Amino acid sequence: MNKSDKKILSSFLIDSGINQSVESVLGLIKGVAAAPEYSSLTANSKNWLGLISPNLPENLAKILVSELENIINVDDGLNSGHDIETFKKRLLNLRRELKNKNITGFMVPLADEHQGEYIPKNAQRLTWLTGFTGSAGIAIVLNTKAAIFVDGRYTLQANMQVNKNLFQINSLTQKTLNTWISETLTSGSKLGFDSWLHTPDDINRLKESCDKAGIELTALDTNPIDTIWTNQPCPPLTPVVIMDSALTGQTSPNKRARISKKLKRNSLAACVLTAPDSIAWLANIRGNDVPYTPFCLAFAIFYSDGSLDIYSDPRKFSTNIREKLGPNIRVLPNKDFLPALRAMGKKNSKVGIDYSSSAEIIKNTLTLSGATVQRISDPCQLPKAKKNPIELDGIRKAHLRDGIALTKFLAWVMENSPNNNLTELSAATKLEGFRREEKNIQGLSFPTISGMGPNAAIVHYRATKESNRKFEQNSLYLVDSGAQYLDGTTDVTRTVAIGIPTDEMKDRFTRVLKGHIALATAVFPKGTTGSQLDILARLPLWEIGLDYNHGTGHGVGSYLGVHEGPQRISKQPNHIALEPGMVISNEPGYYKPNEYGIRIENLVTVMEASNQSFDIKRDDHSLLCFETLTLVPIDLKLIEKKLLNTREINWVNTYHQKIRESLAPLLDTKTQGWLELNTQAIKL
Amino acid sequence: MNKSDKKILSSFLIDSGINQSVESVLGLIKGVAAAPEYSSLTANSKNWLGLISPNLPENLAKILVSELENIINVDDGLNSGHDIETFKKRLLNLRRELKNKNITGFMVPLADEHQGEYIPKNAQRLTWLTGFTGSAGIAIVLNTKAAIFVDGRYTLQANMQVNKNLFQINSLTQKTLNTWISETLTSGSKLGFDSWLHTPDDINRLKESCDKAGIELTALDTNPIDTIWTNQPCPPLTPVVIMDSALTGQTSPNKRARISKKLKRNSLAACVLTAPDSIAWLANIRGNDVPYTPFCLAFAIFYSDGSLDIYSDPRKFSTNIREKLGPNIRVLPNKDFLPALRAMGKKNSKVGIDYSSSAEIIKNTLTLSGATVQRISDPCQLPKAKKNPIELDGIRKAHLRDGIALTKFLAWVMENSPNNNLTELSAATKLEGFRREEKNIQGLSFPTISGMGPNAAIVHYRATKESNRKFEQNSLYLVDSGAQYLDGTTDVTRTVAIGIPTDEMKDRFTRVLKGHIALATAVFPKGTTGSQLDILARLPLWEIGLDYNHGTGHGVGSYLGVHEGPQRISKQPNHIALEPGMVISNEPGYYKPNEYGIRIENLVTVMEASNQSFDIKRDDHSLLCFETLTLVPIDLKLIEKKLLNTREINWVNTYHQKIRESLAPLLDTKTQGWLELNTQAIKL
Repeated sequence: MNKSDKKILSSFLIDSGINQSVESVLGLIKGVAAAPEYSSLTANSKNWLGLISPNLPENLAKILVSELENIINVDDGLNSGHDIETFKKRLLNLRRELKNKNITGFMVPLADEHQGEYIPKNAQRLTWLTGFTGSAGIAIVLNTKAAIFVDGRYTLQANMQVNKNLFQINSLTQKTLNTWISETLTSGSKLGFDSWLHTPDDINRLKESCDKAGIELTALDTNPIDTIWTNQPCPPLTPVVIMDSALTGQTSPNKRARISKKLKRNSLAACVLTAPDSIAWLANIRGNDVPYTPFCLAFAIFYSDGSLDIYSDPRKFSTNIREKLGPNIRVLPNKDFLPALRAMGKKNSKVGIDYSSSAEIIKNTLTLSGATVQRISDPCQLPKAKKNPIELDGIRKAHLRDGIALTKFLAWVMENSPNNNLTELSAATKLEGFRREEKNIQGLSFPTISGMGPNAAIVHYRATKESNRKFEQNSLYLVDSGAQYLDGTTDVTRTVAIGIPTDEMKDRFTRVLKGHIALATAVFPKGTTGSQLDILARLPLWEIGLDYNHGTGHGVGSYLGVHEGPQRISKQPNHIALEPGMVISNEPGYYKPNEYGIRIENLVTVMEASNQSFDIKRDDHSLLCFETLTLVPIDLKLIEKKLLNTREINWVNTYHQKIRESLAPLLDTKTQGWLELNTQAIKL
Repeated sequence: MNKSDKKILSSFLIDSGINQSVESVLGLIKGVAAAPEYSSLTANSKNWLGLISPNLPENLAKILVSELENIINVDDGLNSGHDIETFKKRLLNLRRELKNKNITGFMVPLADEHQGEYIPKNAQRLTWLTGFTGSAGIAIVLNTKAAIFVDGRYTLQANMQVNKNLFQINSLTQKTLNTWISETLTSGSKLGFDSWLHTPDDINRLKESCDKAGIELTALDTNPIDTIWTNQPCPPLTPVVIMDSALTGQTSPNKRARISKKLKRNSLAACVLTAPDSIAWLANIRGNDVPYTPFCLAFAIFYSDGSLDIYSDPRKFSTNIREKLGPNIRVLPNKDFLPALRAMGKKNSKVGIDYSSSAEIIKNTLTLSGATVQRISDPCQLPKAKKNPIELDGIRKAHLRDGIALTKFLAWVMENSPNNNLTELSAATKLEGFRREEKNIQGLSFPTISGMGPNAAIVHYRATKESNRKFEQNSLYLVDSGAQYLDGTTDVTRTVAIGIPTDEMKDRFTRVLKGHIALATAVFPKGTTGSQLDILARLPLWEIGLDYNHGTGHGVGSYLGVHEGPQRISKQPNHIALEPGMVISNEPGYYKPNEYGIRIENLVTVMEASNQSFDIKRDDHSLLCFETLTLVPIDLKLIEKKLLNTREINWVNTYHQKIRESLAPLLDTKTQGWLELNTQAIKL
């Protein structure tokens, strides 16, 4: 904005009675520009204007929106493609910084200060430094060498995106990284890391191997990338909203009273919360700071007296919102966070932190200032996972709407796929369109996986312009997608036949379905964990020597993260018992490399199994089971009936009947007809 | 032995050219008297004479045996019944010792220095102090209070055996004990423990709760019980024998070369072995120091150069055995063990120990003397668990013999039970008799569980004179037993109907059988753990709201412990993948309190599943399955055919056919006839 524009803006602000400087308003817009809603369509894309004033004159609003558009179009250095000179210069600058800081090397993980799954632009330092755009990875830069470590699913992508003259590309496992470090760095080296971006657990593991090799680990309080990334975006700034208890089913004071009891039982003065979804749940607030998960990036200290101090950008909280939060929730600026930890230390307080998700700097600051730090699990995790009846009611409604969108989409795919005009990208866009027609939609809950033929065999496939495949006859189409509705988060995968499937495809699909049904119909005693149930979904594949290389189920939030803990269904040992109200996915699959991929995913919730349906009624041994939440037809063309037993056929028929009864009244006549035809009962 | 007897003995020794003093010979006999073979019949009960001389004249042998019998009959204080005055006096003496040592309290666990399952008499301090004879428990004695903690299965027994005026009786969970301590002891108290009898893991957990309560934990190097237990037996002394590599399938130098590589990979100078079965496996030796498990109580230090120092009572090792052990295995006296640890400390060696099974004093001695102690898993555990083909061959042969004994026994039970003359104890004795007829038998592998009717509902039931039930018509008999053969260890449970079973009994039995078959026929990829498979054995019970409250499978040694790790099949998370050659039990059950108990237990071994039987041949995904080793008929009268599917019926028929084909040629005609009748194919 040039001087004269600033003058105009200034007078507009004065005229509108807004008591803010031009610089402060422009600073706010910069934060807004870094929010994800401006890279993807959302329902509330002008809400941010309320952060300046609740009643903006239209002319002023226009100026502000146009300034926002200008800033969004400024290059932030995150789309530098394959320009080797750019990356060479960045690497050179970083090495100069290492020299200034007197360290031998520096680690650059793809992580933010909250160890989140989706991170804001300013935290995408790995992308800026290397060009790699996958969702997980870490680079390490030494004076003369540099390497990037990515996991198996990203090896190909890293090889395409990262210049091998600058970075050695490695397959990431904890062992490989630590081994590389101890083999490459000499004894006496100083390896630097940003202590906001690594957890105490990570650092302890790394420290062990560094100690062996005589390498010194050096925690840096400022990240050298931030010094050299001149056009680094601001941290995102989006308005915080309050969730009505008609949706959350429990007020924040009630939630805080529960967690407060937990702290007192453990004689803790306070605990530090670093997971933004825990803070969102505890305070009943939501935001829009990162893509796909509707939370506000923040830290918090929760005291055993039930009060909560939230450390974030206070500009995200309007006066109105602050009032609604009440006197026991204070909003404080980020810069006050570490001093608050030190203050607790000075009082020798006993403070709980989660070593697996907090930043190392938090543990360190507390310990050095005199606090007694106790390892705890984030105390919001478990109560957040157990949805209350009002949340479950909302989740069921969200799934009804999601079912409508998916059903319309599947009918549309079936109608249009023979024409060969569909592509992975166009299908994903169409599906998002159907979802956007539904009430309470806020956005997607993760990037849609829309995979045709061999692309679907890549478990975490994401279609790009380059990879985008046209729909082909006699192949399989897999679509894994979900949305954020105000009343619930969805996540569903369907695999459908385009044209005529082979016998092998039908066999594999039916085995995946058998596993899905075995889990959906499981009855199990209280205390059972997802690890125990996992095998049920795999057995039909194991029988013929096959398997799938991912977990069977992840927890899902209530208008929060589409991946949340602590429960999960997987081969990995997990100590968390499944409890009534938990929502979890049921998603076995099978992937034949270079040919096709199959996955059938529904969300389910854990419920008490009525004793009446069992032989024995024993109070000391009450049983749990699952209720399937997702309402989307399963492709009958892919079912090999002779592989199913009576119980399994009954399950498919009952499920399809429930879908018909729930969705048909809400669909147009044409889609009703499609649904009727495609959910016909399989004859016994 | 009086003076004149000693003179006679002395002259006999001189005449026989045995260069040992009378006192040294009498000392040796005392150790022999403490060995378990003199409380139960064994095959080699006079072997110990060889420890005095390889060629003893018969007259001298007679004198020695008669002296042994005298010593065995001396009261050792372990059978003091309910005499309250005796226990009052012992408690009083202990409290005087606590005062002498200036400690507030002392813990008395049922444990030996090796954390073994079966412990020698001198380690039965809990029994001596309290009268409790169960297999697990811990007492704590303070100045004015004392308490004993036992787990659920022993609450009743403790209430009968322990005087409640002296000891408060509590149900044992780690939490309860720690809670009791922190609630009962005041801040500033000193709680003593024998640092040979607790592991570092135990002490760390206890320390955490003591720290909170301001209680000081004090490690004692000598146990105050040993001071006051005047007639405490000696540590047991039994001859060590060498296992031929025709049985072990691998020489000790080869085993040591493997473990040595492991140490070198971890840059360890040595590791400390405290599990006698690990030492037995590594050195290919066996002993008879404790009941049921054929090992020699010992500690060992294994050096990365492949040499092994065994610390034990050197008198157990004859000159001949020492020669066979070779120059790289040294036998040293127990008293040199701690000095050897200190010597490693002085050299600042890096030493590995297993925190979950080593004694705290070992870690402490190493740390204080300057060693770098690294937490490792006992490196012998995993290779010991994976039996080689020669061991498996022996194990199969042992199971054939064990099957003959069991089949004879079951036929005998069926023939004799209508007469009402059988009891739990007489049946167990008869079964042991049948086993003793077989080649290579060394003894039982654990105390036989012989449970009639309601007694079988007690999972760890052990018949006593008081509890002994007569066989009753129309009820169930459960027998869980096993033996130690030179070529293998067995463990098998059968449940049979005496008279006519009820429909409920048949239903429950068949569900247990379905679970057993599901596990026996499971096919699973490499990397699968027992925790993952556990649910297969439970599902048919879960379906009707039932379950069983114990693990599904434990590892079994090769002529070693009947319970060994590291693999297991259980609800508890376990990281150990099942690997070819592992032997493990498959033992689902169902217990209806006060009515009946059901368990069907076979041993199985893990093997590669032939790819030919599967749809897909993929080298990167090889599959494992189980081979059932046990060869004992399953009671057809208890099978409810309509609950079994075709696959399950086929399994029973094939299993019974294999039993017939293997055993029939080795049985007398009458038993052959019984076997033929009782393994008839179930018609499809």
